[in-house]
Amino acid sequence: MDFALSPRARDYQARVRDFIRTEIEPREAEYHAALRALPDPWTRLPVVDELTARARDAGLWNLFLPDERHGAGLDCLEYAPLAEEMGRSFLAPEVFNCNAPDTGNAEVLHQYGSQEQRSRWLEPLLEGRIRSAFCMTEPDVASSDATNMAATAVLDGDRVVLNGRKWWSTGVGHPDCRFVIFMGVTDPDAHRHSRHTMVVVPTDTPGFAVERMLPVLGYLDEPYGHGEVSFTDVVLPADAIIAGPGRGFEIAQGRLGPGRIHHCMRLIGLAERALELACERAVTRTAFGKPLSNLGGNRERIARARIAVNQARLHVLHTAWLLDRSGPLGAYDALSQVKAAVPAMACEVIDMAIQLHGGAGLSDDFPLAAALAGARALRLADGPDEVHLGVVARTELRAHREAAEKENR
Amino acid sequence: MDFALSPRARDYQARVRDFIRTEIEPREAEYHAALRALPDPWTRLPVVDELTARARDAGLWNLFLPDERHGAGLDCLEYAPLAEEMGRSFLAPEVFNCNAPDTGNAEVLHQYGSQEQRSRWLEPLLEGRIRSAFCMTEPDVASSDATNMAATAVLDGDRVVLNGRKWWSTGVGHPDCRFVIFMGVTDPDAHRHSRHTMVVVPTDTPGFAVERMLPVLGYLDEPYGHGEVSFTDVVLPADAIIAGPGRGFEIAQGRLGPGRIHHCMRLIGLAERALELACERAVTRTAFGKPLSNLGGNRERIARARIAVNQARLHVLHTAWLLDRSGPLGAYDALSQVKAAVPAMACEVIDMAIQLHGGAGLSDDFPLAAALAGARALRLADGPDEVHLGVVARTELRAHREAAEKENR
Amino acid sequence: MDFALSPRARDYQARVRDFIRTEIEPREAEYHAALRALPDPWTRLPVVDELTARARDAGLWNLFLPDERHGAGLDCLEYAPLAEEMGRSFLAPEVFNCNAPDTGNAEVLHQYGSQEQRSRWLEPLLEGRIRSAFCMTEPDVASSDATNMAATAVLDGDRVVLNGRKWWSTGVGHPDCRFVIFMGVTDPDAHRHSRHTMVVVPTDTPGFAVERMLPVLGYLDEPYGHGEVSFTDVVLPADAIIAGPGRGFEIAQGRLGPGRIHHCMRLIGLAERALELACERAVTRTAFGKPLSNLGGNRERIARARIAVNQARLHVLHTAWLLDRSGPLGAYDALSQVKAAVPAMACEVIDMAIQLHGGAGLSDDFPLAAALAGARALRLADGPDEVHLGVVARTELRAHREAAEKENR
Amino acid sequence: MDFALSPRARDYQARVRDFIRTEIEPREAEYHAALRALPDPWTRLPVVDELTARARDAGLWNLFLPDERHGAGLDCLEYAPLAEEMGRSFLAPEVFNCNAPDTGNAEVLHQYGSQEQRSRWLEPLLEGRIRSAFCMTEPDVASSDATNMAATAVLDGDRVVLNGRKWWSTGVGHPDCRFVIFMGVTDPDAHRHSRHTMVVVPTDTPGFAVERMLPVLGYLDEPYGHGEVSFTDVVLPADAIIAGPGRGFEIAQGRLGPGRIHHCMRLIGLAERALELACERAVTRTAFGKPLSNLGGNRERIARARIAVNQARLHVLHTAWLLDRSGPLGAYDALSQVKAAVPAMACEVIDMAIQLHGGAGLSDDFPLAAALAGARALRLADGPDEVHLGVVARTELRAHREAAEKENR
Repeated sequence: MDFALSPRARDYQARVRDFIRTEIEPREAEYHAALRALPDPWTRLPVVDELTARARDAGLWNLFLPDERHGAGLDCLEYAPLAEEMGRSFLAPEVFNCNAPDTGNAEVLHQYGSQEQRSRWLEPLLEGRIRSAFCMTEPDVASSDATNMAATAVLDGDRVVLNGRKWWSTGVGHPDCRFVIFMGVTDPDAHRHSRHTMVVVPTDTPGFAVERMLPVLGYLDEPYGHGEVSFTDVVLPADAIIAGPGRGFEIAQGRLGPGRIHHCMRLIGLAERALELACERAVTRTAFGKPLSNLGGNRERIARARIAVNQARLHVLHTAWLLDRSGPLGAYDALSQVKAAVPAMACEVIDMAIQLHGGAGLSDDFPLAAALAGARALRLADGPDEVHLGVVARTELRAHREAAEKENR
Repeated sequence: MDFALSPRARDYQARVRDFIRTEIEPREAEYHAALRALPDPWTRLPVVDELTARARDAGLWNLFLPDERHGAGLDCLEYAPLAEEMGRSFLAPEVFNCNAPDTGNAEVLHQYGSQEQRSRWLEPLLEGRIRSAFCMTEPDVASSDATNMAATAVLDGDRVVLNGRKWWSTGVGHPDCRFVIFMGVTDPDAHRHSRHTMVVVPTDTPGFAVERMLPVLGYLDEPYGHGEVSFTDVVLPADAIIAGPGRGFEIAQGRLGPGRIHHCMRLIGLAERALELACERAVTRTAFGKPLSNLGGNRERIARARIAVNQARLHVLHTAWLLDRSGPLGAYDALSQVKAAVPAMACEVIDMAIQLHGGAGLSDDFPLAAALAGARALRLADGPDEVHLGVVARTELRAHREAAEKENR
Repeated sequence: MDFALSPRARDYQARVRDFIRTEIEPREAEYHAALRALPDPWTRLPVVDELTARARDAGLWNLFLPDERHGAGLDCLEYAPLAEEMGRSFLAPEVFNCNAPDTGNAEVLHQYGSQEQRSRWLEPLLEGRIRSAFCMTEPDVASSDATNMAATAVLDGDRVVLNGRKWWSTGVGHPDCRFVIFMGVTDPDAHRHSRHTMVVVPTDTPGFAVERMLPVLGYLDEPYGHGEVSFTDVVLPADAIIAGPGRGFEIAQGRLGPGRIHHCMRLIGLAERALELACERAVTRTAFGKPLSNLGGNRERIARARIAVNQARLHVLHTAWLLDRSGPLGAYDALSQVKAAVPAMACEVIDMAIQLHGGAGLSDDFPLAAALAGARALRLADGPDEVHLGVVARTELRAHREAAEKENR
Repeated sequence: MDFALSPRARDYQARVRDFIRTEIEPREAEYHAALRALPDPWTRLPVVDELTARARDAGLWNLFLPDERHGAGLDCLEYAPLAEEMGRSFLAPEVFNCNAPDTGNAEVLHQYGSQEQRSRWLEPLLEGRIRSAFCMTEPDVASSDATNMAATAVLDGDRVVLNGRKWWSTGVGHPDCRFVIFMGVTDPDAHRHSRHTMVVVPTDTPGFAVERMLPVLGYLDEPYGHGEVSFTDVVLPADAIIAGPGRGFEIAQGRLGPGRIHHCMRLIGLAERALELACERAVTRTAFGKPLSNLGGNRERIARARIAVNQARLHVLHTAWLLDRSGPLGAYDALSQVKAAVPAMACEVIDMAIQLHGGAGLSDDFPLAAALAGARALRLADGPDEVHLGVVARTELRAHREAAEKENR
């Protein structure tokens, strides 16, 4: 057992960290103020172009992609500390071209896309020229249960016809969003793992409409946003289908595993930043003649946050290691463990930091309120905590249940 | 001991409840949509005028004020179930002219105001013709410790000159906000309970400026809002002082006690509504072939929420009873108990309801996200939880400390 | 609404409190030491006789029984503060002849017993001459589900024959335990509320055997104890049946409601005592140059304990009021609420007090470790928390489910 | 980063695990029953001799000692999974000669002992022929603050004279306990890290007396036990001093670090076993027509326990790795983190398992109640949670405080 980062990961970590602290964090306040001042905040600001170019020049680009031809060739475990650093900042993931859901979409196209799909969509995505969204969750059903899905992708000769309503399509508000990946039911009578189909939908296809942008605890997260999207008789050639009809579930399984752990990695970084802010506040703010750090249970809360962040980080790293070794199926249970634990941990740490900041913590004078909204959403996105706990319990109980059944025979 | 409501309170409760359910709740969605559609949401919509007129005609008006000449003549305990009902709805408190901070300001003017102050400010306030704000908390210091206050109210002959910066001045964004009550230091060398002065400041006084509106977890709470306000050489005649120079702390103590318990009462109602929504969702939404109510720990969470709400309500009622019997000083410790406990309870219940709603719970399709923002703010407003816990502990330990000191002599 | 105790309850409360503090608490340490020193601790020590006589002379006797002929004629709400006082001390309930399960058994015999049963068993029980136990829970099945019960009470002409194994029969170790109330299945095919029969079983009946005494977290709770008891072809005349065959469930429902709330009342007192000890320790023990009360989160923990105890007390009092007004069925849901909440609250408060006492808190130098064992057992006895939470959730969801079903029709 | 165990550790782990499951666990019930049946349970039962001999023959002996001449030559990280396995069973640590406090005492003598001390005490200890205890904590002061220590070790020519009272001296009740390591103040005016001296005290020295054995939540933990010990003018030759006068604090620091992490490793194993038992119960016990695993929040509780155990394990392993790399000082903060987190985690998991077992869980029919007592004690032993949280917070805040101070200059 060796808990040291690989030299390569350590080097990247230092460079990403340095870039974020010297290039991104100092410009965050300016960025958010500029965005807020715009009449239309669904805009890519010049500062992002500038930072993006600089990150690319520095070789800090597409770090999430294990394929060396396109990215840094890092495995999931090596990428983890980098994603953690990026999680500190709302801006950083885009700057390094490592933003969800583009990362997941890129992985799907890289792994399952046709040559044409890759050249048309993956390449510009990996160059940061376009953005994308993922249309899976639906407003009218509990989407944590995939068998509830109502949207359809019906084959009609050499065409596929899409209908349905999706929401929480993150990134669909971005002015550069050029395509979405849609998932719908093709054959309701097939095995529940073979019913669904994924389709690449250009956002200028007739019948595709972004109905509205959804706030998360009051935050619209411009310029990415979370959209409610309607698909009304959207007709596409069959070659817009990814991998083939009925393979949607399989692709989703492969896509969601890494996606979930990337979210968790970033949340570790977000929680770290919240803890840093809490500590700064605790030593600089005075009440009743003492710094806040010397009042009441504040020190214990800070210590508990440190412990929680450290345990969660190790858990995420271990899961990344499993994922690298055994793939999404081998790490299935571990992925659910971290997905059930890390967002809730982050919410608690951020909420503690908010409380230490007083009213300021709830305003936008600090990045904490937005951080809470982001972390809170991840207790629901990509499967609510409770669904992941269910997976963990099922795995845990399986051997015991089988032993008990054997006993009873 | 008798836990039955007084007949008068029961009658009012039934009428308020009925009014809210039949008149207000059905129009809430429309109200919020209309407000959101406005280019300037800092507006009083006609529906509010309409509802307000109807509530007044129904005798459901100024119910918070114990003085029978102006209100219903209810004591705090009788008002509690009415405030709880109002807490269910963002709109209801204004409709019944029972909105904070107008209620607290009205109490201050009623109890401490001069004849002139009352006729000029209290009367139109009680008629709902104007609104008001309260300027106490400051951005640059930990305001939970009153001795930190930096704003000044300097006597200069028959004038008083105000300087300083305040924030979280709730209601200052309302188009009808005509005056604020400002608190500042007059004599920094006086006893710490005699340093401060309260002054009525018309919002059109030169030197008074609303600098910006502050979001709470992304919510600006239009059209009331929470403002950051600057006072720059604001000059007023000395008769704008309430009760007299140096009496600010005394007035604040009297004002904040009832104010805190009113917040708690409303939060009970808000938590009740969140629990109702959670139950509705739990029985109507299906996943994995079962209603959510039959999945995982959802039932236990609902049961725990019911228990928490019931315990908190009894705690608030008991505190109101103490307040009626013994005044703010006699109920000082109990007020801190409920203020430390009820907002946190409400946050947990609302958060649970959000989780049961999935992504929808975080959006504005349900009133839950806004409810969370409101409840979360009250873990900080009027004293953060930790300060109130400190009061409770001090009271709890006092007798033991005195006994220990006696022992040691 | 009036939160003041009735004058009668207040008077009793003062007398009981005074008796416990002046007569019982000063002798507790001596009592426990004496008992521990005995080769056979299943003994009634002379000090108990002495205290019992004094309590009886003071008119503090059978306070639990609402019937004025036998007790003080107090209703449940009036008894609550007295039971709370008794809960402070392991010894007190017996001293006032208010010890479980004798209280519940007395209520059963008083309400359902035949004339002969009452004169043979109830009278000496109310005079404190004998003790009793209640045999319901079984080792081999989840007894929280009454339909699991395996023990049988078979009618055979004018006799009834008992077989089965029971455990957690509290009090069966006492040298004065003369009878138990046994519950068994008589007609497995009857409606599930009419299957069971209760029988009075003298402890000297052939076939009745106490197999062993069960520890609770290492405590045997001598001289009462919790026994595992076997019934092997125990034959009794049919007039040993209480109320009639098949009425066991009905009697149990009536018995368990008050029994549960009595446990909760006593736990409030136990938690109060733990909180007192915590405060004493916090102000008298010094580390790192400060009293423990000024270290870390100790004050917040003490404040939270105060709030939790106060909320729980009000909850229990409200439930007692409901029970007095509406009977066990009307208070069914409320009883489950307090039973699910109060033991867990007591465990937390006691555990906090233990932590403040360091190692001493885990030893028997303070009554805290035994208190934790007692409170922890009550998270299981008379229905585990989870079963009561299930009742609360079912009640909470019922109206919503019915509304949803109506909607769907 | 590589989360795989070293081949050597994996091999030992398999052998230790196998030995425990096939040799120890099947005999535990018999062992405890036999011990309980003894008139004097302060006895080493033959089964222990037998198992001990077998373990030694199998080369599973002194695994804790990094020195290859005496033990397996494993570093702390390699020992961790072995200690975890041993933690499953009350008996296992002694069987493998890896029992606290003998392990810590052996390390002290190995590292600091004179040649004579080592041959007289260390050798028989490592051969399992004698046992030992550690006398540090005192009843009359908060021993978490070492400067409170009152016991004295006064130099008098070539002799040292010990006086004072110690408690929680674990293992002092064992019939083979032949020596204790005593810590006392030698020079109260020296720097607080140079005041104390450690002395080897044979248990047959005049003036040494075990006053009583202390229960932990009702458990005396025979035959090891936790003693209160008095030292009354205990006179020893100066060569009984370890390392030299005034070096007690230094030795304690070195001793307590590994000691704390060993406790945490074992607690991971104990929590694992509790979780296994919980799962077994959940799938085999039925109520309301379903296995407990399908009722209420039980699955979520099991899932959360799995997550908590996994996170804690990784945290402990990481800390062991730090300890191997950087020594007790370099791992100081990490050691406090795990010590503050792991015992509390274990208590929660065990308590959850108890609740799933119903009353049986609180009795001695399962090892859960004793496990809870053991884990609960470790929230206090070797520093209460709160002291360790204080260390963690101090470390966390240091850089922020220094930055703030720099700012202010």
